[in-house]
Amino acid sequence: MRRIRELGERWIIRVLFEIFEPLPDMPIPFGDDVSAIPINGENIVVLKTDMLVGKTDVPPGMSLRQAARKAIVMNVSDFAAKGVRPIAALVSLGLPPDLTEEDIREIALGLNDGAKEYGVYIIGGDTNESLDLTVCCILVGHSNRRRIIRRSGARPGDIVAVTGPFGKTSAGLKILLEGLSPPEYIREPLVKSVLMPGARLREGLLLADLEALTASIDSSDGLAWSLHELSDASGVGFLINNIPVAPEVKEFAGEYGLDPLDLSLYGGEEYELVVTVKPEIWDKAKDALNSVGAQLIELGRAISDKKIEANIDGKRIVIERRGWEHFKEERKH
Amino acid sequence: MRRIRELGERWIIRVLFEIFEPLPDMPIPFGDDVSAIPINGENIVVLKTDMLVGKTDVPPGMSLRQAARKAIVMNVSDFAAKGVRPIAALVSLGLPPDLTEEDIREIALGLNDGAKEYGVYIIGGDTNESLDLTVCCILVGHSNRRRIIRRSGARPGDIVAVTGPFGKTSAGLKILLEGLSPPEYIREPLVKSVLMPGARLREGLLLADLEALTASIDSSDGLAWSLHELSDASGVGFLINNIPVAPEVKEFAGEYGLDPLDLSLYGGEEYELVVTVKPEIWDKAKDALNSVGAQLIELGRAISDKKIEANIDGKRIVIERRGWEHFKEERKH
Repeated sequence: MRRIRELGERWIIRVLFEIFEPLPDMPIPFGDDVSAIPINGENIVVLKTDMLVGKTDVPPGMSLRQAARKAIVMNVSDFAAKGVRPIAALVSLGLPPDLTEEDIREIALGLNDGAKEYGVYIIGGDTNESLDLTVCCILVGHSNRRRIIRRSGARPGDIVAVTGPFGKTSAGLKILLEGLSPPEYIREPLVKSVLMPGARLREGLLLADLEALTASIDSSDGLAWSLHELSDASGVGFLINNIPVAPEVKEFAGEYGLDPLDLSLYGGEEYELVVTVKPEIWDKAKDALNSVGAQLIELGRAISDKKIEANIDGKRIVIERRGWEHFKEERKH
Repeated sequence: MRRIRELGERWIIRVLFEIFEPLPDMPIPFGDDVSAIPINGENIVVLKTDMLVGKTDVPPGMSLRQAARKAIVMNVSDFAAKGVRPIAALVSLGLPPDLTEEDIREIALGLNDGAKEYGVYIIGGDTNESLDLTVCCILVGHSNRRRIIRRSGARPGDIVAVTGPFGKTSAGLKILLEGLSPPEYIREPLVKSVLMPGARLREGLLLADLEALTASIDSSDGLAWSLHELSDASGVGFLINNIPVAPEVKEFAGEYGLDPLDLSLYGGEEYELVVTVKPEIWDKAKDALNSVGAQLIELGRAISDKKIEANIDGKRIVIERRGWEHFKEERKH
């Protein structure tokens, strides 16, 4: 009998979805970044849950306050990708019984930090005893059926873009896990990207307001994985001519003899948005984001051929379907 | 520095609520059975999350399929207490990596079992690697601000009642944990109450339709605890003249020299509703439940004096504030 450590997270999700009976008239399909139920007419309630587990999601050097904050941020990121404003959160905590009074305050403060940054209120939850720290956050908001940006709407010719450069969390995790000591001006932003990640909520809401996007996903499983998910859901491929690598990542990679593209493509826990933009709205969308100090960076184009290839500095790269996956033993980190 | 194993779950919840900023115009206060956000006018979205953890919530003899089903049922019970029909569920799973393919199917089937029994659809979730089985369920539904039955509405003179007899899960857990072997005709219903608990959704919805209740809570932390919670939230006391003990519990207690009232008052994981009923609607409410094969059993009356006392067979009993609490070392089970 095979164990799930060999089968991996995607296999588990497939089995679950095969067994669960689907809600009739489901506004958002199984497996998208968020879930929803219809309320009345076009109105829908949008929900997301993601669980932070100490062993796999809290690297050395991350405080309890940071871990709790991250548990909120990673859920906000999925709302951002769909262009939905989260309103409230519930939090179910699994707590090892040897945590102290101060630990609980740190966790509460971290949850409140994350919530306040994105205008979210924590309205309830549950506490339990567990072997390992477990923070299960649930976000709720409401939206309109037509506003939601699914993974499935990309069309050939759309511009594929991201909201920031990549590679920082891969590099930051390497620093924390392997105890590396690059110069402080590189170390600080890289480690910060892991300990204090941010979600691109402002960007996602603005892009949805402009009706600029045809498909969207967050990059929490890595850039390459996100491109493959958009490709599968939309039935398109991508021709990439730019992979934006953060400058600190280039320096870090140079210092340690690593491939900066590898760090940028196959990382994870990086909360940028990966979107396809209607070409006729591209300039408007880019200007709108720039005007609030945010970025929209072109990677390339969606194509009808279902392959994902990059042409970087005259070199052809096939972007593989790999990235962060729970349970699988061969890990990026 | 004190550890949470000394401080207990209620202390943790108090600290969390002190630190979290409350949502303005919160339709249901912190600490009630469910949470909610306003949508438009009187309409609200109702949410509940409760986490099942292998170590504390899955007794020996409970299959994975039963554990997963229970994770849904315990959330449905809170919706039942508030008179709200759940529509959909999200499930965040924490899974030990040595679970097998078959284990995952069992968990999926159990979740689907619980959902189907109560007309709920599972619309999404998340899977993670963890040290211990963790099933974090989230239920969602919608309702009306005025329909929701809070814990705080009981008035002196109201009839306090429950939807079934008590003590079965305490006895059943004792059998499973201590390996007791009472006669099969007692053992079977007692163990079943633990392995295949049911939520009183039909009862809760019917009582809300009749506008029969002034306050309501489920008895998942035990009957005594639930009475104390209603007392605190409503600012009333209770004079009890009947504690309905299940017949199998009486026999079991006789056989093993246990106090049947103790088993009934201070257990937990028992999913009856504990409600206060408007006296003028009592007959109608009781008849309505009886006509669908359900029960409404009078315990006594709400009183203005904030004490909780029972007078059983001429003996005065003070009902203590104790029952199931996570983290606390002195446990009922």
